[in-house]
Amino acid sequence: MNLDLVSSSRCFDGTQRVYSHKSETLKCDMRFAVYLPPAAVTHSVPAVFWLSGLTCTEQNFITKAGAQRAASALGIAIIAPDTSPRGADVPNDDAYDFGQGAGFYVDATQEPWSKNYRMYSYIVDELRELVASQFAVDAKRFGISGHSMGGHGALTIGLRNPSLFRTISAFSPISAPTQCPWGEKALTGYLGDDRAQWAKFDATQLFAEKGWSGPEILVDQGEADEFLESQLKPDLLVEAAARGDVELRLRRRAGYDHSYFFISTFIASHLEHHARHLLA
Amino acid sequence: MNLDLVSSSRCFDGTQRVYSHKSETLKCDMRFAVYLPPAAVTHSVPAVFWLSGLTCTEQNFITKAGAQRAASALGIAIIAPDTSPRGADVPNDDAYDFGQGAGFYVDATQEPWSKNYRMYSYIVDELRELVASQFAVDAKRFGISGHSMGGHGALTIGLRNPSLFRTISAFSPISAPTQCPWGEKALTGYLGDDRAQWAKFDATQLFAEKGWSGPEILVDQGEADEFLESQLKPDLLVEAAARGDVELRLRRRAGYDHSYFFISTFIASHLEHHARHLLA
Repeated sequence: MNLDLVSSSRCFDGTQRVYSHKSETLKCDMRFAVYLPPAAVTHSVPAVFWLSGLTCTEQNFITKAGAQRAASALGIAIIAPDTSPRGADVPNDDAYDFGQGAGFYVDATQEPWSKNYRMYSYIVDELRELVASQFAVDAKRFGISGHSMGGHGALTIGLRNPSLFRTISAFSPISAPTQCPWGEKALTGYLGDDRAQWAKFDATQLFAEKGWSGPEILVDQGEADEFLESQLKPDLLVEAAARGDVELRLRRRAGYDHSYFFISTFIASHLEHHARHLLA
Repeated sequence: MNLDLVSSSRCFDGTQRVYSHKSETLKCDMRFAVYLPPAAVTHSVPAVFWLSGLTCTEQNFITKAGAQRAASALGIAIIAPDTSPRGADVPNDDAYDFGQGAGFYVDATQEPWSKNYRMYSYIVDELRELVASQFAVDAKRFGISGHSMGGHGALTIGLRNPSLFRTISAFSPISAPTQCPWGEKALTGYLGDDRAQWAKFDATQLFAEKGWSGPEILVDQGEADEFLESQLKPDLLVEAAARGDVELRLRRRAGYDHSYFFISTFIASHLEHHARHLLA
């Protein structure tokens, strides 16, 4: 297995590492971060995949969320991939919300994006299998979470793969990418104009039409989030959950914005949610 | 008072803010960060000044250390200044370890640095007084801490001002800047060749000659720190503490490096140390 260690630091008695590998799915070199709690020294532990938002790399979550404290105490691993294919050979765009740093967790069908921009398959198949085979994690106990674009990724990937990801949570997710500027731009660019192709990458449509029989889905949303009304639209998620009989717990947090100061405040609560079900 | 709000985010039920102001001491605009815990809404709280290391701004600690969790729970504020004067009009150097980002918490006497590079006086006088007058903090209950160059700053500023900073701690401090490459370069550049002028900016000399009658000084040092032997030299601090009868608790942490992954692991323990004495 072609896995290069980029960095390794002890953190809360566990180990925070970053690896690089050649991705078959994305046709480029990719980095991802792995936090292994001390419990992973003696046995396989559950893992939560964290999907980051626009402009992020694998670094943002591991340096800013302070998640290692709770992960160490609970005995769960955290897998934090990059947010898009990368490199000089990978098509890009000058905008912050399209191209590199903005993979949107879809499998692109449009040129020139379709060769590399397959973050959905990368997370669901390649990275998940690679992590399961290379680290002391138990592939039967994986959960998924994320922020903003990554919250959208966590909800859609989780909903579509209940046997692979047993628990789902999100911070400030783009709840309905088919109905907001960030999502419409990305889905048009990666998937084309036929909106029928967009449905399987929209959490509200999956909530309403596919449902979810797993544990309650936990979502935190700051009420002072600058993108709340224009891009995130959690009300649409609540409506869709009701229609699809999805057990959704949306916590509206007064005063909190879209930043990692918000995520750091509630990440322990999310990891406890995942651990409660994954360790049961 | 000329104080501009740069950013404000809720974090652990308190508020993480960044301000800008025109510094009289440094003759330039300066930024500093203030975390106010929820307790500060109703009464003045103790504050810990955090001094960062080489290349850092006021951002590194507030985004990477995860300190707000413990500060919120303990009811203490955190003041995190930048590490040097800043701006196009301020002399600079291409090196990462001299000039902007590397003020070394001294008052420079050499040209062209002496006009702006007065971080010692900025912290001890101007910023301390500004913070005391503008925020719900109790100036009689200030502590000081920091990392690497900022650990050196915390130890030297604390030792020299026991009535202003009642508690001291440090992570991976440059223990003896008169005896390591980082320190010799900075002290020569800012203070000139006369080593007699360096003594008051060297923690080991202050430990041995001046002593400290305040609470135990807490220092954490990673044993896998890449700068341990060449730059940090904690053994010299231990020797000096013995000579000066300074109560020093040096905790050597196996496997930990020089990064914020190390700081984030033990910052709560440091804040508890400060709070134990400042809230007593």
